[in-house]
Amino acid sequence: MAISTAAPAQRRYQRLEDFRVPHGFRGRSALYTQLWWIVQSTLFGMSPQALFGWRRWLLRVFGAKIGKGVFIRPSARVTYPWKLSIGDHCHIGDEVVLYTLGEIEIGECAVVSQRSYICTGSHDYTSPTFDLYAKKIVIEPEAWVATDVFVAPGVRIGTGAVIGARSSVFTDVPPGTIYVGTPARHAGVRTMKS
Amino acid sequence: MAISTAAPAQRRYQRLEDFRVPHGFRGRSALYTQLWWIVQSTLFGMSPQALFGWRRWLLRVFGAKIGKGVFIRPSARVTYPWKLSIGDHCHIGDEVVLYTLGEIEIGECAVVSQRSYICTGSHDYTSPTFDLYAKKIVIEPEAWVATDVFVAPGVRIGTGAVIGARSSVFTDVPPGTIYVGTPARHAGVRTMKS
Amino acid sequence: MAISTAAPAQRRYQRLEDFRVPHGFRGRSALYTQLWWIVQSTLFGMSPQALFGWRRWLLRVFGAKIGKGVFIRPSARVTYPWKLSIGDHCHIGDEVVLYTLGEIEIGECAVVSQRSYICTGSHDYTSPTFDLYAKKIVIEPEAWVATDVFVAPGVRIGTGAVIGARSSVFTDVPPGTIYVGTPARHAGVRTMKS
Repeated sequence: MAISTAAPAQRRYQRLEDFRVPHGFRGRSALYTQLWWIVQSTLFGMSPQALFGWRRWLLRVFGAKIGKGVFIRPSARVTYPWKLSIGDHCHIGDEVVLYTLGEIEIGECAVVSQRSYICTGSHDYTSPTFDLYAKKIVIEPEAWVATDVFVAPGVRIGTGAVIGARSSVFTDVPPGTIYVGTPARHAGVRTMKS
Repeated sequence: MAISTAAPAQRRYQRLEDFRVPHGFRGRSALYTQLWWIVQSTLFGMSPQALFGWRRWLLRVFGAKIGKGVFIRPSARVTYPWKLSIGDHCHIGDEVVLYTLGEIEIGECAVVSQRSYICTGSHDYTSPTFDLYAKKIVIEPEAWVATDVFVAPGVRIGTGAVIGARSSVFTDVPPGTIYVGTPARHAGVRTMKS
Repeated sequence: MAISTAAPAQRRYQRLEDFRVPHGFRGRSALYTQLWWIVQSTLFGMSPQALFGWRRWLLRVFGAKIGKGVFIRPSARVTYPWKLSIGDHCHIGDEVVLYTLGEIEIGECAVVSQRSYICTGSHDYTSPTFDLYAKKIVIEPEAWVATDVFVAPGVRIGTGAVIGARSSVFTDVPPGTIYVGTPARHAGVRTMKS
């Protein structure tokens, strides 16, 4: 069965021919951005895992603030490095995406484990031009975002918080708490061994 | 502790040595299919993001129906292009998989965001030969399948519907509604700004 | 707003500068491990899909026990092959990760479908040094782990069990049952056609 089509003027929800990335949204030119993506898929992405210093250097060259002793796996991806800040001794795992349409700030000694997606961007789906927007995400120091976690635009994850594997975080997470699920809910307090 | 093994005749659930892809299932020869996959991982997958026209052209050469102004990211994957139809002005995001064991039809101005998986194929797990089957998926015009959504075989997503990030869709979604969760449930009506 | 920082001595949750991979944890030298990862991203990962025998051979060279007639897709990943055992006639799908920090044992005629993550490793988040640990995962014969399933450290999935697409398994699954959801719960018994 064929699906119906409509003339552009009759579209009710999404007129994507009128969709535009807002002027200056990237913060750098399209060409510079494309250059980073080529670097990322080659010099960064194909580097042996042990070369953490090399990847830190590449990210800094493209404008990221990266602390000392930060471990970023070669399969991790950063959309716009110039909107990224990572404190000392953080770990960023395999296939993590730091989708920095807006800023991402990660405090020292925080961990973002493999396959997690830190998503600063979304669309206003009440607008027929499907307007793109971004909201800063903050992961405070000593937090652990475990495997395959989704963090939504605008979220702040508090110091030392733990987000359980496979959770999706749509609201702020208070410091020192454990959140799990989709959407992530309070599941306990993080208590340390004495 | 070692796990037990059984002689093939004693297997109760899956005799995979007897599993076969049904004759003609792919719709093209194994060699032609393999050629596409090589093209996909090189000429398509390594192309700079800006070359949207180039990737549209490659998909059409391999039999896909792709409308004008369609944006497909280089990290998106299409299993069998000859079973794919995409209307004008659609967006297909990073790491999306259009798993076209069966047909996938995407209406104009629809969006499938990053990491979503449109899955037409499954197995009959009540059959010891684990029979492969496929059911067509339709994403109607102006629908938005947000980030990391799974769409199961046979599903139809209605015009203008929104599927929330990280949802899994196992049932049809009516036009103009918002569905979220795993399994995705009705969460509201899509109301547009006047 | 800047996020606060603390002197290392004042850190309450994670002192990652003191994090260490336990001695001998990998079971092979760092250099040998790195060699495998390079092989995996080139000779293994870039091989045409049809060359299943070639990939079985590469995994065996690096210490994996791989049965006959095992189908492993080129985009699947094995962290340490020497901790992997797969029985005859198994299928391992696209983008599956067998994260063998601890052992993974997969019985004959089992299937792990695309994008699933078999995760033997985690961290003790009650320890300020964020101690790494691993627990063996067993997938018994004739089980089906469907698409995009997460299996947590220490889990045993019983013979012939079915884990539904997009589920996350944190507890053992009895033989012959169907589990779905996050966390996965009992949803039925697997009944075969007579």
